[in-house]
Amino acid sequence: MSTPQNPLEDLKSFLRFPSISTDPLCASDLEACAGWLCKKLSSSGLGASIHATPGSPVVVASSQHDPSKRTVLIYGHYDVQPPDPLESWTTPPFEPRVSEGRIYGRGAADNKGQILAHILGVSQTLREKGSLPVNVIFLVEGEEEIGSPNLKSFLSAHRGELSCDLAVISDTAMAPGNRPAITYALRGIAAMEFIVHGPARDLHSGLFGGAVANPATVVARLLASLHDDAGRVRIPGFYDAVRSLTPWERVAAAALEAASGGESAIKELAGVTELVGERGFTAIERIGARPTAEVNGMGGGYQGLGTKTVLPKDAFAKLTFRLVADQDPLLILEAAEKFLRGQTPPGVVLEIISGHYGAPYQSDPHSSDGVAARKALAAAFEAEPIMLRDGGSIPILADIREILGVNSYLLGLANPDSRIHSPDENLLIENFLGGIRMNKILLEELGKKNLG
Amino acid sequence: MSTPQNPLEDLKSFLRFPSISTDPLCASDLEACAGWLCKKLSSSGLGASIHATPGSPVVVASSQHDPSKRTVLIYGHYDVQPPDPLESWTTPPFEPRVSEGRIYGRGAADNKGQILAHILGVSQTLREKGSLPVNVIFLVEGEEEIGSPNLKSFLSAHRGELSCDLAVISDTAMAPGNRPAITYALRGIAAMEFIVHGPARDLHSGLFGGAVANPATVVARLLASLHDDAGRVRIPGFYDAVRSLTPWERVAAAALEAASGGESAIKELAGVTELVGERGFTAIERIGARPTAEVNGMGGGYQGLGTKTVLPKDAFAKLTFRLVADQDPLLILEAAEKFLRGQTPPGVVLEIISGHYGAPYQSDPHSSDGVAARKALAAAFEAEPIMLRDGGSIPILADIREILGVNSYLLGLANPDSRIHSPDENLLIENFLGGIRMNKILLEELGKKNLG
Repeated sequence: MSTPQNPLEDLKSFLRFPSISTDPLCASDLEACAGWLCKKLSSSGLGASIHATPGSPVVVASSQHDPSKRTVLIYGHYDVQPPDPLESWTTPPFEPRVSEGRIYGRGAADNKGQILAHILGVSQTLREKGSLPVNVIFLVEGEEEIGSPNLKSFLSAHRGELSCDLAVISDTAMAPGNRPAITYALRGIAAMEFIVHGPARDLHSGLFGGAVANPATVVARLLASLHDDAGRVRIPGFYDAVRSLTPWERVAAAALEAASGGESAIKELAGVTELVGERGFTAIERIGARPTAEVNGMGGGYQGLGTKTVLPKDAFAKLTFRLVADQDPLLILEAAEKFLRGQTPPGVVLEIISGHYGAPYQSDPHSSDGVAARKALAAAFEAEPIMLRDGGSIPILADIREILGVNSYLLGLANPDSRIHSPDENLLIENFLGGIRMNKILLEELGKKNLG
Repeated sequence: MSTPQNPLEDLKSFLRFPSISTDPLCASDLEACAGWLCKKLSSSGLGASIHATPGSPVVVASSQHDPSKRTVLIYGHYDVQPPDPLESWTTPPFEPRVSEGRIYGRGAADNKGQILAHILGVSQTLREKGSLPVNVIFLVEGEEEIGSPNLKSFLSAHRGELSCDLAVISDTAMAPGNRPAITYALRGIAAMEFIVHGPARDLHSGLFGGAVANPATVVARLLASLHDDAGRVRIPGFYDAVRSLTPWERVAAAALEAASGGESAIKELAGVTELVGERGFTAIERIGARPTAEVNGMGGGYQGLGTKTVLPKDAFAKLTFRLVADQDPLLILEAAEKFLRGQTPPGVVLEIISGHYGAPYQSDPHSSDGVAARKALAAAFEAEPIMLRDGGSIPILADIREILGVNSYLLGLANPDSRIHSPDENLLIENFLGGIRMNKILLEELGKKNLG
């Protein structure tokens, strides 16, 4: 028998953990967060356990298995992005705050609020009906924001107990205007950092400038070489495996554009006056269906106030490539490395550190489970869901397909202005509560295909 | 009557002040340093005073004026560069340390050790002989490292009491191999910082990447545009006013190259395996006689460990141009701004912050005072001085010529491996003590031209 629920209080408790997976100092916060989650699942009436990995633990929970029912795996993650720049938050990122129908805090939308909606949906159904219309497995990891380095081997090691008929994931956004949406494609990702090493130490830029290669200039020239003037990535072979948009996809993208306010909506969300990018594609197509090379960070030399006349000893850049079907992240990282090395001038040493990566994912929103998912969204949010592509990356989708042999259905609950990865991340409370409703209807719909 | 001197202890006391002029938090340290200096000059037998400015104070000291004698103005500065990166210092930058014939500390060579040698030379002469062979004025400022923003107006306001026949400055280095040198040209400087503003906040690079201009990429492309593949600055008009090297100068540069170990010596000092730069000039010529555009610092986006998949809201670069006669710093800054603005793509806003600047300086080492200066160097250091150009900048030289109407003679005391502006800055103690000897001989030589 579980205690009465207060969904918002549960979410606040969940959000208070600074479960930042990229920060080695947060290891114990991640452990504590996993512990809280396991307890929550367990008190909801599921059999829950914490599994150690070389990194953050994985939380797994299952309802009592009924062989006559289909099995739905619900995936989510309890880790979050770093909150910096801290000074840009209205209130501290790990002190959740409710204001004007939203809950603010790092992880509110990505992904704590979304996975918790599913947990609370299952919990309510169990409390109200005593059983679920399908078998449910929750798989909640703590390393999504760093590319899920240990989840693939976890899936392989536990493929028996994770055996399922389909996967459901809420880790994407609704369509502009907060319309419900099914996401049928996500971009892959490939991260790399490079460091250009120059002189043995910072030099006086007057006494050496003109004769010694400046690592900051070299980094700038390498970064500048990544794109041509039309916004296309210049790495040889980069576009070779890119699947072209089919006619129905371009129609869907145009419909979304029309329904959503298109470019002006994106501009408003981003806070820019003009959109840019690869020619020949709309902004929605560029974000969802075209690969990119983005600088996530760069630095070198003097960072303080005023001037310091140094020729810096080194400089760095952090890059991620976003990839679409059927680009291979490892081939892209190889091609990028070759491209950068080929342009490195004399007088410096280029160090390349490959980062995490994950394959792009694409599925069919017209399958029978896709139709069930769209029905649940329509009923819970009282609007016909849109079919869209998402520019973000959930590398685990490709792994789930490869190892568990099932498709994933992406039913995003984040409002489009949820500011995920940014200061003042938030989730509309209506989306959170709607997510709980949606979970209940979805399991009901999926259960209609049970063998029994 | 002054107390007995211990030159090295005096220098250590001077070096303990963290008189960092670019750091607003060091204002009281600069004041304290000026106070120490004033007391030192006063106890040496000079009439010394501290003059407030809108920035750091100026210290002025004069010997008793004898109208039958020529007047020599000795200029120096008591402010220093920031010490970062702190972790690269063997011992703390403001705790002077003597080791293997050198004294280590921020400012040891640039410029505390050099100006103190002159002060102690005058002090010794006064103690030993009761009077000086020439009238001496010390002018020691506290804003050289930020471009002497208040010195020009100070010179104008005090041009009567600063009236002199020539200026002497030791703020340069000896020639490679620690051979004495007279520096007949210095580069000018023009500093600017630019910031590229993009979205209203850091964005998720997956959800917006491909449609929103990335400020880090824009900064990189602007920086990359500064040079062509042959190492020449691409700003239109940049080279228009550059004075060509005369045949005797190219001979002098070649002689210096031969005497000094040339490129291999520069490589060793810089800790690089290869030199680069503008084609058609030797490394010594590129540093001394050719203008440059150097990135002193740049940054944007995520700076921490690991990956953060943001599209940063802004990015910056700090630049300095080193200029040669007869380039005009203000025209160069204007041309640079126009060049950068002309290339700024849509979707971002370019903010340009002009920094300090100073004109290049060039004088004739074959004048009679130039010959006297070379004699003093030869006698104090027992080697024929080399005539050289220095890649650094002392903008005040152009102001001294303009306002006081005199030439400056540059008698550098820093050993070439003194690491000025870098961690482990140091001064050979022999150079410091030789500088004291040189001052005594120099004033004697210059006094031979007295009217009386």
